[in-house]
Amino acid sequence: MITVYKIGGRILDDEALLRSFCREFAVAPAPKLLVHGGNVLASRVQEALGIQPVKLEGRRVTDAATLQVVTMVYAGWYNKHVVALLQAEGCNAVGLAGPDGSVITASRRPPRTLSDGCTVDFGFVGDVSAQSVRVPFVQGLLDQGLVPVFSAINHDGNGQLLNTNADTVAASLASALGARLQYWFELDGVLSDRERPESVIPQIDAAAFEDLKASGVVSEGMLPKLETAFAALRAGVPEVFIGKTQICL
Amino acid sequence: MITVYKIGGRILDDEALLRSFCREFAVAPAPKLLVHGGNVLASRVQEALGIQPVKLEGRRVTDAATLQVVTMVYAGWYNKHVVALLQAEGCNAVGLAGPDGSVITASRRPPRTLSDGCTVDFGFVGDVSAQSVRVPFVQGLLDQGLVPVFSAINHDGNGQLLNTNADTVAASLASALGARLQYWFELDGVLSDRERPESVIPQIDAAAFEDLKASGVVSEGMLPKLETAFAALRAGVPEVFIGKTQICL
Repeated sequence: MITVYKIGGRILDDEALLRSFCREFAVAPAPKLLVHGGNVLASRVQEALGIQPVKLEGRRVTDAATLQVVTMVYAGWYNKHVVALLQAEGCNAVGLAGPDGSVITASRRPPRTLSDGCTVDFGFVGDVSAQSVRVPFVQGLLDQGLVPVFSAINHDGNGQLLNTNADTVAASLASALGARLQYWFELDGVLSDRERPESVIPQIDAAAFEDLKASGVVSEGMLPKLETAFAALRAGVPEVFIGKTQICL
Repeated sequence: MITVYKIGGRILDDEALLRSFCREFAVAPAPKLLVHGGNVLASRVQEALGIQPVKLEGRRVTDAATLQVVTMVYAGWYNKHVVALLQAEGCNAVGLAGPDGSVITASRRPPRTLSDGCTVDFGFVGDVSAQSVRVPFVQGLLDQGLVPVFSAINHDGNGQLLNTNADTVAASLASALGARLQYWFELDGVLSDRERPESVIPQIDAAAFEDLKASGVVSEGMLPKLETAFAALRAGVPEVFIGKTQICL
């Protein structure tokens, strides 16, 4: 069975963690593919260029200048740096963004009117689903023994690049390919106590998730990741792990 | 016969010129591939980030911070923007940097001692030749009807990205593939009078090149491009054009 790995959080921003992940990933059984984020450096480059990062509901509002930055950081620096590290480990990786072979086509998120009458426009932000993935292209690469490495920059098919969420890209790929899904980040899994890195919850089902939300144990960045994990299971992904925490319906 | 196109100069920095090139390139006969530069934006981003661009003999000195910038600009923004524009024109492009499928492996340029005893170190700059190209990988993409689009960011096979010269990457690909080579930029070709865009020289052979150098008609950026063109012909490339100027031995 194919495994889709997604790395994010501090792993990408810590050279030692990144190299250690690449070594582990290189020897993981094939067929496999990788999706990566890159938020921290993107914010740093934005600020250095005098663009103030704006986030709404945890998602980056993406104007034209911000789109250029995230494309540079995700599809440029991180994608090629990770692919070069994997090649050095003997893993025949190929870096991709959505327009490459039109492998992922996203649809631009329409502006939304909130209950207070305000309009929220995320700008050049795209949404993806299992239907966005050109499966034969990905399968063709896997059949050649290649390891696709996806940045979360995709396109609309009409020449426009779109910034998409890397967790959702990973879930969409897993769903389209019938692959298991593994989220990696700097922690060992979903923690019952954020102060104790060893307090990994072994398994979370839908009922437990409701309890964790109600008690506030799970919040902030972990909340959308868990939502995405459950959505992936409902979309037919056979197995989802966040670190060592297994997510089940 | 395969054609290798290389675009550079103002084309990449002028959205109207770039879109017009993409429309022309999309309908050019296959098999074909594209190599692009991106110097102007790279210098702009460098300066915005407070890194002073340093050039020696027309080549960018590439420290670690500069390598990150050129990888972001060439392999990130320009590569994915061009591929998205080509996809919108119905051209099934795939963007590549050297580490992708290890398609091009460069060797880091060693520091060089000048006659005055000074040492010149270009930093993370790589040299490429026809032997750097993994021909079966490129041929495999062409056989699938794909159109490879190369940024001039390559790797050394040991995890290190290297900044390489896009004109030389194009010449190396043409030589490795036995392809004809076409350099495109904002002018119609090599001019006999830089003030008159219509003064395109139809053909330049080795003897004419010596005369043009001696008279100062050809200088600055055009000089290394012509040297690279002649080197490509000597390396077996069957046909080289700089705009509409044919270069012959």
